[in-house]
Amino acid sequence: MPGQGGTFPPLIDQHCHGVLRTGPEPDVFEGYLTEAHVPQHPDPGPGSPPRGPGGRAGYFDTQLGFAVRRWCAPELGLEPHCPPAAYLERRAELGTTEVTGRLLRASGIATFLVDTGLPGALLTPGELAETAMAEAHEIVRLERLAERAADTARDTHSFLAELADSVRESACTARGFKSVVAYRCGLDLEPTPPGTSAVYAAADRWLASRVRGGRLSDPVLERHLLWSAVRTGLPLQLHTGFGDPDLRLDRCDPLLLTDFIRATAPYEAPLILLHCYPYHRGAGYLAAVFPHVHADFGLTLTHTGARARHVLAELLELTPFGKLLFSTDAYGVPELYLTGARLFREAMTSLTGQWVERGEWSPSDAERVTAMIAGGTAKRLYGL
Amino acid sequence: MPGQGGTFPPLIDQHCHGVLRTGPEPDVFEGYLTEAHVPQHPDPGPGSPPRGPGGRAGYFDTQLGFAVRRWCAPELGLEPHCPPAAYLERRAELGTTEVTGRLLRASGIATFLVDTGLPGALLTPGELAETAMAEAHEIVRLERLAERAADTARDTHSFLAELADSVRESACTARGFKSVVAYRCGLDLEPTPPGTSAVYAAADRWLASRVRGGRLSDPVLERHLLWSAVRTGLPLQLHTGFGDPDLRLDRCDPLLLTDFIRATAPYEAPLILLHCYPYHRGAGYLAAVFPHVHADFGLTLTHTGARARHVLAELLELTPFGKLLFSTDAYGVPELYLTGARLFREAMTSLTGQWVERGEWSPSDAERVTAMIAGGTAKRLYGL
Amino acid sequence: MPGQGGTFPPLIDQHCHGVLRTGPEPDVFEGYLTEAHVPQHPDPGPGSPPRGPGGRAGYFDTQLGFAVRRWCAPELGLEPHCPPAAYLERRAELGTTEVTGRLLRASGIATFLVDTGLPGALLTPGELAETAMAEAHEIVRLERLAERAADTARDTHSFLAELADSVRESACTARGFKSVVAYRCGLDLEPTPPGTSAVYAAADRWLASRVRGGRLSDPVLERHLLWSAVRTGLPLQLHTGFGDPDLRLDRCDPLLLTDFIRATAPYEAPLILLHCYPYHRGAGYLAAVFPHVHADFGLTLTHTGARARHVLAELLELTPFGKLLFSTDAYGVPELYLTGARLFREAMTSLTGQWVERGEWSPSDAERVTAMIAGGTAKRLYGL
Repeated sequence: MPGQGGTFPPLIDQHCHGVLRTGPEPDVFEGYLTEAHVPQHPDPGPGSPPRGPGGRAGYFDTQLGFAVRRWCAPELGLEPHCPPAAYLERRAELGTTEVTGRLLRASGIATFLVDTGLPGALLTPGELAETAMAEAHEIVRLERLAERAADTARDTHSFLAELADSVRESACTARGFKSVVAYRCGLDLEPTPPGTSAVYAAADRWLASRVRGGRLSDPVLERHLLWSAVRTGLPLQLHTGFGDPDLRLDRCDPLLLTDFIRATAPYEAPLILLHCYPYHRGAGYLAAVFPHVHADFGLTLTHTGARARHVLAELLELTPFGKLLFSTDAYGVPELYLTGARLFREAMTSLTGQWVERGEWSPSDAERVTAMIAGGTAKRLYGL
Repeated sequence: MPGQGGTFPPLIDQHCHGVLRTGPEPDVFEGYLTEAHVPQHPDPGPGSPPRGPGGRAGYFDTQLGFAVRRWCAPELGLEPHCPPAAYLERRAELGTTEVTGRLLRASGIATFLVDTGLPGALLTPGELAETAMAEAHEIVRLERLAERAADTARDTHSFLAELADSVRESACTARGFKSVVAYRCGLDLEPTPPGTSAVYAAADRWLASRVRGGRLSDPVLERHLLWSAVRTGLPLQLHTGFGDPDLRLDRCDPLLLTDFIRATAPYEAPLILLHCYPYHRGAGYLAAVFPHVHADFGLTLTHTGARARHVLAELLELTPFGKLLFSTDAYGVPELYLTGARLFREAMTSLTGQWVERGEWSPSDAERVTAMIAGGTAKRLYGL
Repeated sequence: MPGQGGTFPPLIDQHCHGVLRTGPEPDVFEGYLTEAHVPQHPDPGPGSPPRGPGGRAGYFDTQLGFAVRRWCAPELGLEPHCPPAAYLERRAELGTTEVTGRLLRASGIATFLVDTGLPGALLTPGELAETAMAEAHEIVRLERLAERAADTARDTHSFLAELADSVRESACTARGFKSVVAYRCGLDLEPTPPGTSAVYAAADRWLASRVRGGRLSDPVLERHLLWSAVRTGLPLQLHTGFGDPDLRLDRCDPLLLTDFIRATAPYEAPLILLHCYPYHRGAGYLAAVFPHVHADFGLTLTHTGARARHVLAELLELTPFGKLLFSTDAYGVPELYLTGARLFREAMTSLTGQWVERGEWSPSDAERVTAMIAGGTAKRLYGL
């Protein structure tokens, strides 16, 4: 049984983003601890939380903020739960490179699958791997492929041809695809692949109205992307559940994907439902009844901190144990990798420890299931 | 207080199905541990869980699979948590009759209310009772009455007449009705009884298009059935929440029944919301505010295994204690009866034990509420 | 750390109603322990819970009923968990004034924010304050302003003028507004303020069809009220989640307010989502990503009793700690104040105690966050 102080299987972080090359400045650090668009509210009104040490809304006063102070402070030579100001000061003193290296190497993550579709001056997967003394592979974000093709295409025909090429090429170099259709049109999609003429018409409309750099949110093109990915047979990660305020959470319930899941069942491509909270029990149901569906917790454990154990336990109600995958969804600051990894490790150890103590699970099953979730299943699905 | 090793009140399993007369063969046993349509996926792709001992997807690696190994193995003379292969071997060695007898008699279930509407070579309620040394009564599945009448009726008029007769006759012999309208059209029904001409038109359409053996899924005929049952005054069980992939879980939220519940409030017929997960808190609300509504946990405790205690606790948040009923929803294999019964007993004992220890409940209340849920309320509702 | 027997910060009950001047008679006391419309079902059918000591449905057999016997009986000189009949007898013996005084003063509530929009012969905020030896302030219910204006207005023009005046005047005397739009049309509103001509047309229609005393449920007038309140900059409390059977719970999910929340973000007015159960995790998400959104638990802890700790823990998953507010939603009987306050105190102490023991929170953070939720945040938001 994985015990306190005992060994824990190496982690495969099956869904994360990059780490900033430099910074962040202390006064914007808290913005990385929340899904709120903090920088857009530089002067919060009376309805906002009290300002934190950096002069912004106090996002250190959250489960994630407390978890960062608990788990990361000791790696920087501070007491757990030291004041946020002391933490930020020490962080600045050590510098980005040193902090990133220490926190990544302490995370126990051996392999990163990096969704490279987010903007910002981030370490590449290769640099992340080097810094963490780990491996890294790429996950390609579908919407980014479409947006890039739209930026360069001469016309609708060349746009769709280039998009098809880029999906095909990505399938050779990346380990899987990711879609943020939840953000762009919600998950209540028509389940079937759109016909060629519908795709052309949608592409015409989008390209005609689009300004350079504009986001894809056309539902026909989104379906076209999803089906293009499914047809490659590679794993397809789908954002579900909470995220930043660009989404409407009630349109991100993974159960809204049910008809799409049915339609894609005959294909080989595994679907991986990311995050899922607060709809994670529904995600567990989908993983239980559809062979190609899997669930992940990503953002969820990181943001629920001291409650991670309970949320993970809920995911372990219906999800078959071979169909749940660890990830951190970390972005921007290395704290999110370390915190996500530690919270999972502690939660899993504590939960299975209780179940073994009560006789509900055997010690060897606890060890086996922990290894599956930590990385075994990801290894199998992504061919690592 | 019901304690470990102490006595526990006799159980009334208010919703279950039958047990197979013979088998199942070891290589299909796991199919009874999941709501997935396993036999339809004999060759699971890379997105499926690792194959289990029987060569199929590993549905032993679930909370239910672990619970079966924990609770049933000792009744067959094995260690708890013995390997699945050893369990299946021992099962085959003892034979169906012996295994069924041992597990049913160990379950502590004194009375079975059997929904006889499922297909398969199953023991009748009488045979089940004899094998378990218990009592059994019938619950009639409404859709089955309609499908049987359709198989034999000459025309629409005789179909509706025969359906009316069969509802009336069932009300004399059975203890209640059951509907799977959740599977057939979802729970977001028009709440009122359909008029006679609408029923005739719907029956015409259905009979004209139906092939022999075809399922009822017409929403007008479903409403006609539900109201026919309500008018008898007998308890009406309604599937809500999760089940096999034929349903869309988001259309099985019991709250979608709210207007039907309001419309049926003036009648005497108790409504019993089955399973409910993951919408069980909403079911508890309905039971709290509508006098004729009750909640059950059925499938839910069985499938959540080591987490049964927590899910039961959530049901005990708003549900008035006299309105929650024990059931197993067991089907096919006797393991599901024993596991459902043990998980409930352990969960209830553990929960009330904690509450008594913290001073939140009195010991005599704990005992009294346990007896209500175990069978007292079912006795009252079904006139046992 | 707030410990057993230690001091606990003074409470600000940011959402409650009044206490009855006299009574209730023992045989209707249980009606105050439920959101069901008990008096409308004087003769419950076989589907109802067993009758309690007062001859009515047994709403003492709920988590709230058990919590009342636990926490209130000792304040009346009885053993915790004494039988309901003994409790009601003692209550009658002491008389309303004595019982109300004892229970309110034992609650630890220092400030009451009273929604004065409910009918009944209730103590005024001033009388409540005096009885409890505390402070009280008014929260104005928007629908009540409209209904009062409609009772006296000569025509549409004078109705709207009087409504505008009463909102403006309330903003000077009250600490905030409250809306029960959830009950009247559900929360899936058009998010934007209705135009003047639409408001006039809706007011015309409503006044023409209304009988004196009739309730407001017109969605255009509801939106007009909400926006009138938001424009004052005062806190706006919104009923979300469960309540009595007049609402459809699935239309009270606070996530349905997302577009209204986005539209009101540029204004100063804090929005406070009341109750939230069982959608409290979604409410926590909204509070996490929208600076002006806050969450409350009101009814929820009171009605979940022994489970209050777990429900509060779920609220503390995503809700930033400076954005969660204590309230009791107490109405009619003083038991609901004491029970709500004790359940919160015990839940908060127990939860933070566990987190501190596991090293997940620091003792000083636990103390600080407890003080925020108990009253610190309410003090800031309502300018107390």
